[in-house]
Amino acid sequence: MARLKNNYRKRTARTISRDELRRSRKSVKEAVPFKVIPLGGLSEIGKNCTLIECGGEILIIDCGLAFPEYEMFGIDLVIPDFTYLKENSEKIKGLIITHGHEDHIGGIPYLLRELNVPVYASPLSMGLIDHKLEEYGLWCETHVIKAGDTFNVGSFRVEAIQTNHSIADSMAFSVKFPGGHVIHTGDFKVDYAPLDGKVIDLRRFAQLGDEGVDLLICDSTNVMREGYTPSEAVVRKSIDEIFDNTEKRIIIATFASNVHRMRYFMESSMKHNRRIAVSGRSMENVLSLARELGYLNDIPESLFVKISEISNIPDRNLTILTTGSQGEPMSALTRMAYDQHKSVKLKKNDVVVFSSSPIPGNEKIISQVVNQLYAKNVKVVLASAMDVHVSGHASSEELKLIHTLIRPKFFMPAHGEYRHLVEHSRLAQSLGQPSGHIYVMQNGDALYIEGVRAHVINGYTSGEDVMVDGYGVGDVGNVILRERKNLSQSGLVTIAVALDSGTGSLMAAPEIRTIGLVYEQEHKDLLDEALSIVYNTIGKSTEIGGLDEQSLTRAIRSDMKKYIYQKTKRSPVIIPIIMYV
Amino acid sequence: MARLKNNYRKRTARTISRDELRRSRKSVKEAVPFKVIPLGGLSEIGKNCTLIECGGEILIIDCGLAFPEYEMFGIDLVIPDFTYLKENSEKIKGLIITHGHEDHIGGIPYLLRELNVPVYASPLSMGLIDHKLEEYGLWCETHVIKAGDTFNVGSFRVEAIQTNHSIADSMAFSVKFPGGHVIHTGDFKVDYAPLDGKVIDLRRFAQLGDEGVDLLICDSTNVMREGYTPSEAVVRKSIDEIFDNTEKRIIIATFASNVHRMRYFMESSMKHNRRIAVSGRSMENVLSLARELGYLNDIPESLFVKISEISNIPDRNLTILTTGSQGEPMSALTRMAYDQHKSVKLKKNDVVVFSSSPIPGNEKIISQVVNQLYAKNVKVVLASAMDVHVSGHASSEELKLIHTLIRPKFFMPAHGEYRHLVEHSRLAQSLGQPSGHIYVMQNGDALYIEGVRAHVINGYTSGEDVMVDGYGVGDVGNVILRERKNLSQSGLVTIAVALDSGTGSLMAAPEIRTIGLVYEQEHKDLLDEALSIVYNTIGKSTEIGGLDEQSLTRAIRSDMKKYIYQKTKRSPVIIPIIMYV
Repeated sequence: MARLKNNYRKRTARTISRDELRRSRKSVKEAVPFKVIPLGGLSEIGKNCTLIECGGEILIIDCGLAFPEYEMFGIDLVIPDFTYLKENSEKIKGLIITHGHEDHIGGIPYLLRELNVPVYASPLSMGLIDHKLEEYGLWCETHVIKAGDTFNVGSFRVEAIQTNHSIADSMAFSVKFPGGHVIHTGDFKVDYAPLDGKVIDLRRFAQLGDEGVDLLICDSTNVMREGYTPSEAVVRKSIDEIFDNTEKRIIIATFASNVHRMRYFMESSMKHNRRIAVSGRSMENVLSLARELGYLNDIPESLFVKISEISNIPDRNLTILTTGSQGEPMSALTRMAYDQHKSVKLKKNDVVVFSSSPIPGNEKIISQVVNQLYAKNVKVVLASAMDVHVSGHASSEELKLIHTLIRPKFFMPAHGEYRHLVEHSRLAQSLGQPSGHIYVMQNGDALYIEGVRAHVINGYTSGEDVMVDGYGVGDVGNVILRERKNLSQSGLVTIAVALDSGTGSLMAAPEIRTIGLVYEQEHKDLLDEALSIVYNTIGKSTEIGGLDEQSLTRAIRSDMKKYIYQKTKRSPVIIPIIMYV
Repeated sequence: MARLKNNYRKRTARTISRDELRRSRKSVKEAVPFKVIPLGGLSEIGKNCTLIECGGEILIIDCGLAFPEYEMFGIDLVIPDFTYLKENSEKIKGLIITHGHEDHIGGIPYLLRELNVPVYASPLSMGLIDHKLEEYGLWCETHVIKAGDTFNVGSFRVEAIQTNHSIADSMAFSVKFPGGHVIHTGDFKVDYAPLDGKVIDLRRFAQLGDEGVDLLICDSTNVMREGYTPSEAVVRKSIDEIFDNTEKRIIIATFASNVHRMRYFMESSMKHNRRIAVSGRSMENVLSLARELGYLNDIPESLFVKISEISNIPDRNLTILTTGSQGEPMSALTRMAYDQHKSVKLKKNDVVVFSSSPIPGNEKIISQVVNQLYAKNVKVVLASAMDVHVSGHASSEELKLIHTLIRPKFFMPAHGEYRHLVEHSRLAQSLGQPSGHIYVMQNGDALYIEGVRAHVINGYTSGEDVMVDGYGVGDVGNVILRERKNLSQSGLVTIAVALDSGTGSLMAAPEIRTIGLVYEQEHKDLLDEALSIVYNTIGKSTEIGGLDEQSLTRAIRSDMKKYIYQKTKRSPVIIPIIMYV
């Protein structure tokens, strides 16, 4: 039934007017130039944000954040550099959202703090965005859209096309405008048996391909995986197997935004006479949103039980849905593993399912949680051993399918590290796309297209990512990060010295403090000798009539650095402070 | 030919005397108790070091180090806690080495600094150990052993058994002593076609199994991989394919200690009229050792060319062997990728082969190097796409083979994270081993065996790992690490205040310094206001007659912390220093 409804919606989605089509084709002939600019995503390109600019109008596709990478000490998150948008704010017509993952919507509050932009998003994405705006006390014009809808954003005629991804309501966009016709796939895979029955609208891609597409911007995440990404149906089968064979509690860690998978966990629980408890604030939030939006219709309220009230429920009648699939230190699952969860004490043979795969960089911390779970004698089910998770991104054969349906004039691989873009370029070439029509870009580059001609303008605007630390947006740069790194390696030594402002002689014993260097209690000798080093440095200075503040600071730092390194082979940060009294 | 020689050696290896056998069997009947104690290896158990103690004698198997894990800021390396060995130094009879990887020999200098222990190791392992001892200015009694050798270490009758692993000269040990018969596999896989022709001595394992084995200590690294680990022959095939199809330079990053694989790279180069340049100090060291030891006989000196002299050699006639397969920041390959290598400028279509797989935790940093290589237009060959690397550890089917050949009375899974040990225990149970005869332990636990009875003594000695930072061994603990972490997150603020020792009034303007918090130049307001906060705190103190030093320190820290958090939402380390003048 869901299938039928969906097909119906798809049919309505195709009712773009012949006039529009003609206009769009004509515009290509007239060759109005346009630019496409990828922004943000750290080591990935064209992930967080993409701009289409034509005839003095800018359309923004997605506005996400990235999580800090290697050695970004103390950084909370990373957003695209909005400088270009701020400088061209009058041109901005709107922001359209492919799906509601953080790397596609997480930057919105930071953009809206600077600029007023109307946002177009699916019901789930918009729910997640609303939640953010509330948190930040922000407001903007919002338009809820659905796959199949066609709408105008300035002169951009946008059509939302059903795709499949690891979150509900994901979509690709066809954008027609005086400069041409661009298709942006968003994050997608081809799933012939998704849990909600809404198969990616391949026929619409085929039709649009027939109409003529100037530029395809396509997800590259899994281009290096051969074959096809498995369907969610595979997860369903594994979950069935677990539910059919377990008389103990089932605890499932996953991303709440994969609403259809969550729904399946609930349906399976119902079928197996299990009630459901949810642990973890972010999961509770997304679930209450999903319920509001009607994704969980037919799932009765009575199925749920508060996590604080699970003690009365027999093990074979309980499923716990929880956050923490990435080993996050304060998450519900991690607290369970370390016996720090208020309501859930793990029992022997509880089944803990990681319905997720490690985000690169999280492998070690997840391992620690998994080992801890093994030590609790629970049964751990990982996606590496059983198909309890599938990727949301298209593998190489699916990418070939999309290229073949769309047959774009130009191609810009996006959403991947540089190597993925290059491999995606090779894939397109293997299908006959001329290499001269493929543009592997860096964030901040602009792809300039004028009819049948195109070229890249390198470094057209800042493609740097902006680090957010607390209230500070962009005020932590490489210098500060280097300082933090230095501090993290061997700590610091401060030396405070009070000198007579007239004679330059010492007015009190210098004070030395160390942090993160050695246990001071156990290294009294080291500190005593360090003190005598300071006396010695100041003594030498006095002998030659007293150094000026800067020179004395330098001398104290240099002598102390040498001494500490010689004694410990460590290089703490040295901070001399001289006070003239 | 190599095969034949090897078979001959194996035959001699089996000539253990009947007397010895009888003695060994008899001892089991008399039930002399013994203990087995795993030490060190961070999240892995029984990896770096294992002790067998019987009748007042201790045999040490391996003495390795671990590389710092997650959030071990500034730590160079991690070694086992040698406290138990120091307390029982008179019992120690010797240290036997399974193979020359750092996690099995890297702790030796730290042990030898404390204790004088004779070391038994294969030629390659001993060469690598000698290099370390020289570096640390240490000396010990050394015995070079070969697979097939049987020798006494105190009352321990040790037999070295040929295995296969990703380093030359790897061996398992059979140890017979009054308490019983223990087999320790070391790190191993079953390779029916290793490059040196020396197949793991399965027949000897079978014979020893027939004789009766009390305890098997077995590698668990790959227990969660189904099937068989591929042979090195697979790598040979891939390498042939690359050499046959490339007219450009071939640059191979790998671990030098895999001497036979290195040798194959050389042979292939010779066959394809390529000369070889080596880049990276550690690789040069291991290669010169391998040459000394005769592993590279038949490889003519003239094949090699200095890395500084490659410019004259046509691309199709050059192979470069290099360090950096783990993305190490200062390694030769990383320098090539970032255009910082003195002699190697990468060219379009150079082929860069990673003959390695990422050590867990290194994925991100390797990705960065790979992206950089793609940006240089070189062809990157990763083990994930082509079989240019195979694991050195046995997968589940190989483990089943070993268990089946040895059929030990007791089993102690080792060399793996806790989850691997548990899965290895399950594997043994699936073969019929009673779960009551399997001991999943933690480092520092002792397995106590007396004839047919065994039990675990939890926390028998310290299984903690000891952190090494510069010259400091064990002087950095959790407190210091926490301090370093705090410093790394938001930096620090120091506040130096000079007060009149009589009246407690300010003698000079307080001095504020920040490191790693904000760019001071761009945040003059923040610092100016911070200064007024300090004045305010001291003013309040003076009003009530002057706080004592400790209370004033606390007040300054608390007021400053509040102020900085309110302004920046950051929590730097605050260091007030009060000087009484």
